[in-house]
Amino acid sequence: MKALKKNPNRPGPLLDRAAPAEPIDTSALPSRWWGWAPGSQPSWPDADTVARFVTYLEKRVGAGQKLPVPDPAGLALVPSRLPSTVVSALRYLLGPDRFSQAPHERLLHSLGQSFSDLVRRRRLDFGYPPDAVVYPRTAEEIQFIVQVAAAHGVAVIPYGGGTSVVGGVEPDRSATRSPTITLNLRHLNCVIRIDEQSRLARVQAGIRGPDLEQALAAAGFTLGHFPQSFEFSTLGGWIATRSWGQASTRYGSIAQLVCGVKLAGPQGLLECRPHAGRSVGPELQELVLGSEGALGVIVEATLRISRRPEAAEHEAYLLPDFEKGRRAVRAMMQTGLTPALCRLSDTAELRASRVMDTTEEEAGTGGWLAGLSRWWLRAQGSLGRDSVLLLLGFEGNARRVEFDMRQARAIMRRFNGASLGAGPVRRWLKNRFRLPYLRDPLLEAGYLIETFETGATWDRLPQVYERGRAEIQQALGRGLVLCHLSHPTTEGACLYYTAMAPLEAGQEIEQWRRVKQAATEAFLEAGGSLSHHHGVGLDHRPWLKAEIGPAGIDLLRAIKR
Amino acid sequence: MKALKKNPNRPGPLLDRAAPAEPIDTSALPSRWWGWAPGSQPSWPDADTVARFVTYLEKRVGAGQKLPVPDPAGLALVPSRLPSTVVSALRYLLGPDRFSQAPHERLLHSLGQSFSDLVRRRRLDFGYPPDAVVYPRTAEEIQFIVQVAAAHGVAVIPYGGGTSVVGGVEPDRSATRSPTITLNLRHLNCVIRIDEQSRLARVQAGIRGPDLEQALAAAGFTLGHFPQSFEFSTLGGWIATRSWGQASTRYGSIAQLVCGVKLAGPQGLLECRPHAGRSVGPELQELVLGSEGALGVIVEATLRISRRPEAAEHEAYLLPDFEKGRRAVRAMMQTGLTPALCRLSDTAELRASRVMDTTEEEAGTGGWLAGLSRWWLRAQGSLGRDSVLLLLGFEGNARRVEFDMRQARAIMRRFNGASLGAGPVRRWLKNRFRLPYLRDPLLEAGYLIETFETGATWDRLPQVYERGRAEIQQALGRGLVLCHLSHPTTEGACLYYTAMAPLEAGQEIEQWRRVKQAATEAFLEAGGSLSHHHGVGLDHRPWLKAEIGPAGIDLLRAIKR
Repeated sequence: MKALKKNPNRPGPLLDRAAPAEPIDTSALPSRWWGWAPGSQPSWPDADTVARFVTYLEKRVGAGQKLPVPDPAGLALVPSRLPSTVVSALRYLLGPDRFSQAPHERLLHSLGQSFSDLVRRRRLDFGYPPDAVVYPRTAEEIQFIVQVAAAHGVAVIPYGGGTSVVGGVEPDRSATRSPTITLNLRHLNCVIRIDEQSRLARVQAGIRGPDLEQALAAAGFTLGHFPQSFEFSTLGGWIATRSWGQASTRYGSIAQLVCGVKLAGPQGLLECRPHAGRSVGPELQELVLGSEGALGVIVEATLRISRRPEAAEHEAYLLPDFEKGRRAVRAMMQTGLTPALCRLSDTAELRASRVMDTTEEEAGTGGWLAGLSRWWLRAQGSLGRDSVLLLLGFEGNARRVEFDMRQARAIMRRFNGASLGAGPVRRWLKNRFRLPYLRDPLLEAGYLIETFETGATWDRLPQVYERGRAEIQQALGRGLVLCHLSHPTTEGACLYYTAMAPLEAGQEIEQWRRVKQAATEAFLEAGGSLSHHHGVGLDHRPWLKAEIGPAGIDLLRAIKR
Repeated sequence: MKALKKNPNRPGPLLDRAAPAEPIDTSALPSRWWGWAPGSQPSWPDADTVARFVTYLEKRVGAGQKLPVPDPAGLALVPSRLPSTVVSALRYLLGPDRFSQAPHERLLHSLGQSFSDLVRRRRLDFGYPPDAVVYPRTAEEIQFIVQVAAAHGVAVIPYGGGTSVVGGVEPDRSATRSPTITLNLRHLNCVIRIDEQSRLARVQAGIRGPDLEQALAAAGFTLGHFPQSFEFSTLGGWIATRSWGQASTRYGSIAQLVCGVKLAGPQGLLECRPHAGRSVGPELQELVLGSEGALGVIVEATLRISRRPEAAEHEAYLLPDFEKGRRAVRAMMQTGLTPALCRLSDTAELRASRVMDTTEEEAGTGGWLAGLSRWWLRAQGSLGRDSVLLLLGFEGNARRVEFDMRQARAIMRRFNGASLGAGPVRRWLKNRFRLPYLRDPLLEAGYLIETFETGATWDRLPQVYERGRAEIQQALGRGLVLCHLSHPTTEGACLYYTAMAPLEAGQEIEQWRRVKQAATEAFLEAGGSLSHHHGVGLDHRPWLKAEIGPAGIDLLRAIKR
């Protein structure tokens, strides 16, 4: 770490005690520099919601020891180590406004948004911040930066929304690390062209979700890519991590949506032209998808877009247990249905989500009407100790939506699903990007909250689900493990866990690492993937060989060289 | 060429005039060693059909000079150049039955099935046949062969059905070529496991289309991959060339059907495990898809399979012109329809196909009923000088098929499509794998017949279509250019041309090369892809750089190393 402020809990390594410390201009730090959505004033969660949730957690897992946001006054970083030729070349190219070595900018680009990143912020442990931050405006500028950096042994980290939860934007922590430039893509945020005939859009890589959807909506289109980080994450980040969104079963994962890509690498510009079927050797764009910055900087992409849906239908179902739910979802997929929303919460998640005010009414909350509805659901066999909740939504042209919903209803009946109407889905849609906002106040109140995800084929999914739940629970000790199944395809689905427990004061990172390791090893041993859509980053690196084998590692190394 | 027989027309280079020639045991050659389906007795085309077609061609483009099959008696090859250590290692491993240096086996593995390959067979010009042919039975044997070969600088060519039309199985023709082993995968022809839950099948790479479909059908499934070479081509070949089949709009191209793959390379076994969503760096299986043998030998794959369709509906439509047809197909794709068959023949192909007895009745062929139907079609504006034919088919569960067909009919009405009923589609389905059988008798009768294909996005498709047609026509001189649009997706489609002309006697290869070059350059200049589904092979190599750029070439080279 470069933070020179005295930190009694966790001093961390110092890069160079002899070097003069550069104090941080704390007035230049945005509000919420310590958490999700820095610089904004989110309206959710309000104090009541937080209090309600903390009370629930206290009752279930006990009280945690608070971890407040420290005062950053007096924080200082060791100076940038960037070679002076690189500094002058980039300052000449970009001017003083778009090339920065200011400590506060370096600090703001030093970590992502995993639980451990949030803890480290509150410990003023910023690892090894980048030595400079640059803000290019064009592909040519990026190409120049990448080549100058490569020529001087300087690492370049592409930075979009900074929302990685696996250490994807953090500079190398190893002893042999190079000086590092973080390349912030915020200026590359345009939709360049919409080809209405071919339903393709050329888009710059630094665009954020809402800006992209807004520009497409103006022409009557949508990409349909809604990861939970949608508000802040960028197209380039989605591509670099092979991201999936909440509607990917309908619109395709980002890997299926990309039809062409441009990457500025140290060897020059790699351009994969959009096409409609091509058999000319391996598709090189597939190397860019998931490349996580290793091959260069993703500059732009051509994306498959769809007409904005003219109709949507939503319906929530209560099903007797997780296995019945899994089978119902599998049946829908293998019948050829492609819901825009398909999310099966297990019993623990269903219960916790009622407290979070996202789906509070789904099983009835009071009054004689609710009592009647509970009786009816019980009589159907849908409501019981092990009930699970399926949120379902179809969108597209009106007749198809109606047809698909009818097929889905028939399947639900086969698996004893009881409809709860559209309410729970609507509430979930309203809150779909909220969970990350809850982590900061929970941390403040003394709770670990982290998510883990894996992909599994249908035949292995039950064992991955059980094994993951058991191992995470054991590593947590007294804690809550929630899970949902989402992003289903004909061959399987994603399992997405949320873990919560009282913080182990002073040992938060170790606690987190223990749970992370338990979850990851459970997934891999039971036949799940290392990550379904979060990527490798620094956090998953130790397990990469187990996932892709030694020949796979060799191949990736060769490609990078 | 290694064929030492005197060939007055085209002697070709001799590898080593001093080396003793090894005579070929002609009695060991299969019947039809010179053409499609060697060793079989195809029932089609009968003499009548051929005569009818030749008469049609004579009338349209003039008579050609016959190119008969020569007597191979006396043909000899220069001896195998394989290092003796390799010979003894492989003979020890495989035994005498599965390791062969017999001249007739080497000869049979020396060429693919492009027009120029057929001509060269008839000229007894077999290029540089491989130095040995091996028939491994297991992945371990393949791994051993590949590693022994790599250690001794010997090239390995994986060989499935030998149906490449772009020089994909032919040994290197360059002066610096290495000794070569052709690795015939015919013994790896099993379906290893069907996972009914995840709809995945593990299959060995050497299996041919019919064997694969039969094994899947026994369990109630289909892969749904039907390239025109289906009867002979193999899973490994489909993967190595990123193949598309006639039903790919419904089931996906092979790239979309592969969910895991094993490749035996010189560095060891690369195993991409099947998964249901994975974000762990670039998907390495994408490097195997389209690798055309460059990285190693594809040993097996895990494939997404579907339940055999419970229902199918077919309908043919006459549309006023190609542009209207293109728009109608685009509208279907962008509405979300995924027909199992969608093939739009242009006017020239429609007329020629009537002669080929594949769709003879679609515009009425005689009698007062036919006259009435013609009158009705004309009145609708569907039948005219520029009419085109769309073959359409949907399959899947009964209700969905009915629903999709209804949506398709509504679109057809919008574009003045007039239904011709299911007859033309049924005839086409019966004949779908027949075209390759026609090439041999046409060559015999003195006609060039070759196909060219490209992929284009919808916005560029009209210009690619026109430009391709014009340039092929000009290169042919007096000849026929037929075209159909197929394999549509939301962003574009494949254009598939068939060219026919009288052979330029003694200059057949040059004639073919001229047309090939004209077609390829027209495609690339108008914005199409170098190949939609045939691959690169030796024939498309000169244009690869134009397609993927210098950085792309560098990357492919690096991966290969």
